[in-house]
Amino acid sequence: MAQADIGLIGLGTMGAALALNIAEKGFPIAVWNRTTEVTHRFKAEAGDLADRVIPTDSLKDLVAAIKTPRAIILMVPAGAAVDQQLEALTPLLDKDDLVIDAGNADFHDTNRRSEGGLPFHFLGMGVSGGEDGARHGPAIMGGGTQADWDRVAPILTAIAAKAEDGVPCAARMGDAGAGHFVKMVHNGIEYADMQMIAEVYGLMRDGMEMDAAAISKVFTDWNEGPLQSYLIEISGKVTEATDPHTGKPMVDVILDQAGQKGTGRWTAIEAQHLAAPIPVIEAAVMARNVSAQLQQRKEGQDRFGIAPKHHGFSPTTLEQALIAGKILCYAQGFAMIAAASEKFGWTLDLPGIARVWRAGCIIRSAMLNDMAEALAQDPSRNLVMAPFFADLLEKAMPSLRQVVSEGIAAGHALPALASGLMWFDMMRTARGTANMIQAQRDFFGAHGFKRLDGLDDPHGPWGMGR
Amino acid sequence: MAQADIGLIGLGTMGAALALNIAEKGFPIAVWNRTTEVTHRFKAEAGDLADRVIPTDSLKDLVAAIKTPRAIILMVPAGAAVDQQLEALTPLLDKDDLVIDAGNADFHDTNRRSEGGLPFHFLGMGVSGGEDGARHGPAIMGGGTQADWDRVAPILTAIAAKAEDGVPCAARMGDAGAGHFVKMVHNGIEYADMQMIAEVYGLMRDGMEMDAAAISKVFTDWNEGPLQSYLIEISGKVTEATDPHTGKPMVDVILDQAGQKGTGRWTAIEAQHLAAPIPVIEAAVMARNVSAQLQQRKEGQDRFGIAPKHHGFSPTTLEQALIAGKILCYAQGFAMIAAASEKFGWTLDLPGIARVWRAGCIIRSAMLNDMAEALAQDPSRNLVMAPFFADLLEKAMPSLRQVVSEGIAAGHALPALASGLMWFDMMRTARGTANMIQAQRDFFGAHGFKRLDGLDDPHGPWGMGR
Repeated sequence: MAQADIGLIGLGTMGAALALNIAEKGFPIAVWNRTTEVTHRFKAEAGDLADRVIPTDSLKDLVAAIKTPRAIILMVPAGAAVDQQLEALTPLLDKDDLVIDAGNADFHDTNRRSEGGLPFHFLGMGVSGGEDGARHGPAIMGGGTQADWDRVAPILTAIAAKAEDGVPCAARMGDAGAGHFVKMVHNGIEYADMQMIAEVYGLMRDGMEMDAAAISKVFTDWNEGPLQSYLIEISGKVTEATDPHTGKPMVDVILDQAGQKGTGRWTAIEAQHLAAPIPVIEAAVMARNVSAQLQQRKEGQDRFGIAPKHHGFSPTTLEQALIAGKILCYAQGFAMIAAASEKFGWTLDLPGIARVWRAGCIIRSAMLNDMAEALAQDPSRNLVMAPFFADLLEKAMPSLRQVVSEGIAAGHALPALASGLMWFDMMRTARGTANMIQAQRDFFGAHGFKRLDGLDDPHGPWGMGR
Repeated sequence: MAQADIGLIGLGTMGAALALNIAEKGFPIAVWNRTTEVTHRFKAEAGDLADRVIPTDSLKDLVAAIKTPRAIILMVPAGAAVDQQLEALTPLLDKDDLVIDAGNADFHDTNRRSEGGLPFHFLGMGVSGGEDGARHGPAIMGGGTQADWDRVAPILTAIAAKAEDGVPCAARMGDAGAGHFVKMVHNGIEYADMQMIAEVYGLMRDGMEMDAAAISKVFTDWNEGPLQSYLIEISGKVTEATDPHTGKPMVDVILDQAGQKGTGRWTAIEAQHLAAPIPVIEAAVMARNVSAQLQQRKEGQDRFGIAPKHHGFSPTTLEQALIAGKILCYAQGFAMIAAASEKFGWTLDLPGIARVWRAGCIIRSAMLNDMAEALAQDPSRNLVMAPFFADLLEKAMPSLRQVVSEGIAAGHALPALASGLMWFDMMRTARGTANMIQAQRDFFGAHGFKRLDGLDDPHGPWGMGR
């Protein structure tokens, strides 16, 4: 009976793709879906892989079909559904069995489940790459004990994407929620990458009046250079596509109202708890929120008029600006991960994270190779201070500064690019302006301050005026 | 025995000031502090007001000293201490008694306490204005039932600050945590106001090489105009003060490392939950976090050099930029409050909130009079769209744009001013760039999009390339 190497619960888009990927790599897999019909249709449509798919009609049958000690992947909607499945599995599993939550869980939930005394082993696992990734090679970020990870590592590394050097993009990030945490930051960075691309797109479309075809060519060119990445690649593709209904460029008929599933927001919230500045991601989330306010934006334009926006930049200047923005954004993201590692005692492997992101996931890019290398040299150093990136930045910052300052002067909204630049300018200024804030806080609240000369006299002579 | 109109627990700085304020307004007040000595010293030092202060040595004595139905103000550290006091009071109070948490509570805690079945009545109350405010007239933001508020309103309005028109700055904001919520947003705006002032200060100090005395004069002048406010007033004062140790301007010896107690961070987190964009406040919190990273900033300057920063603006241009930034920040803050009102079913009175903030609190300003008026005309309209402020903005935006774009070009970090401008430029653009984001999301995740022409075809012809 027990012939499957692993089980999987939840045959939605992602679950089905992951199950086929596992079967394809040679592992017999038992599957179960709440709707039995879905389970059997899945096997029927599995083609060549059908003989490695074992459909089951009940959780009990699923458990019985898996070799002990068992491993079962959960791919159900994050939240209550996961807790329900864990509860339903509790009477059926042995204490040595292992359940892997591969959904898009809030890492706090994964922490809770890991520490909550489940009567079996548990891994939280972030899976990135969408349906195609799940089917043909996702990036996999695991959280749990090393021993639990090691048990399923042969399957997970087999199904994961491979980087150019052949290294599988699957790794244990750390204990408990660490995998889902890293996946969350990945998604935050994804928001930021996409927003910066949208801003540069706006500079070309509105500032330089380039049509979609011309813009597509720029993105396609960039994908041959330092910006080579999945998101730049698909930016070239989506701007190239034609709407079958109107014959217009596809992007020109799409409403400018961005959706979101919340992981960008989670990242911003967690960064606040960590006091880790990630302004580029915050700006990206903000831009999506504002984009949703269609009516207000229309009224705003009616009242204030649209800014003229005409302004030209060379593609090279825009490319350099985007390179700088990208480095700054990733530097913030990795610093946030480092802060979390310390707070949660995870000892996260920063270069390892960069390596896992090199393939399979949405933010995969050539630059992540260099980031992995730079972080390996000294993971405690901010990425902007790594010689390779410091040199890149030195070259690219004048372009970012020019694009932001001239773009803003011309009326372009560049919140993500500007936020990156503002952070950089603060991070390169030994003497900032927070002394003014400290003076005010001491004046009205006697909060005290430190002095530059180290003298221990934390209050100002504000006197009766206060 | 029972002769006090009200009781107060916790004679720290804020509690003591509030108790004296209450006594001064003619209300006998029973007080209790964990340390009995503090309680008696408080009476001993109450001077003329001592005969209205009834010190008590136990919670039981405190309760016995207050007329029924009783009202007791809690002024203890937010968090666990409040829950402990509520528990300690439980066996001593009648069901008609009322406890008022006047500390800096997280509004979620106040919601929980309000809904958690305490065996007595409960109000959450935000108190702003620091020690001086508490002593001589704070702004008071209440949360709870109308009936509970009405019971103590005579005392609270008597001790509150009075606006220019004589209206007391004390009001019930709504149910449960509404008062602490509004206080939290107040503090978020306070962060933003202070950061924008610090940025303009930086433009004068580093860009125009003005000394503190010259900067003080500019702030003092501004305090006679549209920017008239407590924070501008004290900005003039702190830049005027001299360090008794060195004879240098006080601000020049203060370390540029800003502290924070977390309410700005809470505001940013809650705005994320509400999907309400408050980029200026986010930028202010970010700037405080970055200011704390002294060593990194020093290393950044060593590696990248400090930007030249030399650039001049007229004081009038800076003033106009600050006016615009302020309007944009408050527009975001009020929109966040409106979003919370809807989410939590609080029916918050926006013009009423602006009125409460007109005096007593840290962000009090002349402009809040006009904001109260503009919000009263149509609370559902974003503040930037109110004719009065739209006109002001139209006049001031070119200055904000000039300051941000030229300031950034010169290397100044202006995150809060820039964030306000970016938001404004998005809010005045009917056709943004989120169509690019939607195209990408559909390409890699089949998330779907809406079309400008309303056709129901939510996916692109991305084809096999996907």
